[in-house]
Amino acid sequence: MSNALRLHRLPSPFRMHRGGELHEAVIAYETWGRLNAARDNAILILTGMSPGAHAAAHPDDPNPGWWDEIVGPGKAIDSSRWFIICVNSLGSCRGSTGPASVDPASGQPYRLQFPDLSLEDVALAAHQVALGLGIERLHALVGPSMGGMSALAYALNVASAAEHLLLVSTAPHSAPFSIAIRSLQRELIRSDPAWNGGDYQAGNWPTQGMTLARKLGMTTYRSAREWRQRFGRSRVADAERDPTPFAPEFSVESYLAYQASRFVNDFDPNCYLYLSRAMDWFDVADYGGSVAAGLARIQARSAMVIGVETDLLFPLEQQEEIAEGLRDGGIPTLFAALPSIQGHDAFLVDTPRFAKAIAGYLATT
Amino acid sequence: MSNALRLHRLPSPFRMHRGGELHEAVIAYETWGRLNAARDNAILILTGMSPGAHAAAHPDDPNPGWWDEIVGPGKAIDSSRWFIICVNSLGSCRGSTGPASVDPASGQPYRLQFPDLSLEDVALAAHQVALGLGIERLHALVGPSMGGMSALAYALNVASAAEHLLLVSTAPHSAPFSIAIRSLQRELIRSDPAWNGGDYQAGNWPTQGMTLARKLGMTTYRSAREWRQRFGRSRVADAERDPTPFAPEFSVESYLAYQASRFVNDFDPNCYLYLSRAMDWFDVADYGGSVAAGLARIQARSAMVIGVETDLLFPLEQQEEIAEGLRDGGIPTLFAALPSIQGHDAFLVDTPRFAKAIAGYLATT
Repeated sequence: MSNALRLHRLPSPFRMHRGGELHEAVIAYETWGRLNAARDNAILILTGMSPGAHAAAHPDDPNPGWWDEIVGPGKAIDSSRWFIICVNSLGSCRGSTGPASVDPASGQPYRLQFPDLSLEDVALAAHQVALGLGIERLHALVGPSMGGMSALAYALNVASAAEHLLLVSTAPHSAPFSIAIRSLQRELIRSDPAWNGGDYQAGNWPTQGMTLARKLGMTTYRSAREWRQRFGRSRVADAERDPTPFAPEFSVESYLAYQASRFVNDFDPNCYLYLSRAMDWFDVADYGGSVAAGLARIQARSAMVIGVETDLLFPLEQQEEIAEGLRDGGIPTLFAALPSIQGHDAFLVDTPRFAKAIAGYLATT
Repeated sequence: MSNALRLHRLPSPFRMHRGGELHEAVIAYETWGRLNAARDNAILILTGMSPGAHAAAHPDDPNPGWWDEIVGPGKAIDSSRWFIICVNSLGSCRGSTGPASVDPASGQPYRLQFPDLSLEDVALAAHQVALGLGIERLHALVGPSMGGMSALAYALNVASAAEHLLLVSTAPHSAPFSIAIRSLQRELIRSDPAWNGGDYQAGNWPTQGMTLARKLGMTTYRSAREWRQRFGRSRVADAERDPTPFAPEFSVESYLAYQASRFVNDFDPNCYLYLSRAMDWFDVADYGGSVAAGLARIQARSAMVIGVETDLLFPLEQQEEIAEGLRDGGIPTLFAALPSIQGHDAFLVDTPRFAKAIAGYLATT
């Protein structure tokens, strides 16, 4: 755990949205900048599925964060102006309580005894962090990918949660294509004998299942167009080829293997299952019977919704649906459809384009 | 084996494109209609990866075929006018010799001892069937999906192979996205312990790997748009739900499970691996250094290329590339971009649209 990470103890018990409760649960978070005296300059960032709270380099932890080019002094989300908070999601494994944490009742890891996790729980746990920091109302709530769904859950469950909403490459609910991909990822993990019904042991993780799930994820995080430019039909050098029949031969295959190897021991498999399912479950339509009715319940002074033309996993029409629904509900909403070729991951890699859009929006708030 | 299936014995040895040879190999095929006296009314259909030679109902086998709404008397590929041949690909398991066949040298199934399979082998074996039927030059060569790639291989390797080419939802080579998906499918099969390096036994097939590979395939055969209309966020009825944690809950998940269950014992896993890799390997650019140079070598009096806007696996730009290359090579070429929402599988299911395009083209030939 880095020196910049702080822990906030949740109310105990913390009641979960779909039933069950947690005791002595904590949320890990980091902050950048200073909360002003009026306590009205706070921006809370909710993350995608796998990142932790370390969104950017910090005086106490100079390692680059997952959104380092967007968050920091003088950057699009400017820590010299805003008090920025980033939380590790409830249910994750980067400091917050999740299925890999020890259940104080049993002294053993929760594993599948962790209660059903929903993005409402992620949102309300993050809200407790804001309250704990003395913030009644956020200046802005920011969420890319799953974080955008959590931000919607936050805004739907906490009246006057934030003055402004910035929703990036996200959706009002998961479309069946995304559900299919995530369901298959979960099945790949569960099909690994080492998963063992969730009772895997240290040193014997379901690494094969996690590898396959990550590779599948990677096919949906970028775009066919980017890969065509980047890899084309280039081959792995003969000297580096594994001679096993059907082993990787094209560069794109070794790229997938490399990406998976970086992830596979870095994220707890049960946490992955819980967070992945929470994304499939979340639905703005649960609030009022339709996506439009749900979005119309949200209160904010303004919103911006950003999406990318090449996003397979959270297709642009879903960001458009959010923007239209917020507008129909009376919130002045900017909608930016960016021509990035990096697909869903563009917010992490096509940062000049995103920085410009985000900085431009925050300047108006 | 159905009563309509015929076997053609290949020259022995049959030398393979990438080295090695087969002895006593056969190709399974079916025919519809009659070859005329001039032997100039033959249409040869090369198939996608998994279908067999039974493209349509036949007097000796009235079961519907995989392209039943396109092939038959009075249909778009009209058996009352044309002598239609459909071959089961070399390397497949539906009557033709493949990795599941017995190697006459050992008396044991080839399994991974089968020589490397390329689409050039599929094409040249099909050409032997045409020659065996007394056909020197086809009226038309037709290929959807992998069959279109095999048809390109045919036209590139047999001078004056066919008067006309009809290429459907296919590509001059596999793009990295498609390679990634297929590589992952192959890895899913190989990762199943029951695959056992290819030496699986009857009754203990790598069904888990095949199930996962088929589910992954299904996510790329249709389109997100179709699934959104068809499934939305509908759920499996409570009474039908498996109570196991993380078991299918959304209709799209049970659809994938159903589709996989229909396929998993119906196709030999090693044949799947060989044919899948052959698709990744094939490249028109191998003929002359670039796709354009390769296409410019093809001779025909006309061509039609059909594609679908929502195809993820063989994106429309690849059909456009073929059409432009054939045109640049001097072949009058029609290009039809169909607005089907069924993605890559549209040629199998949006048949009225395809029938109209195909019938219209064949009427001009």
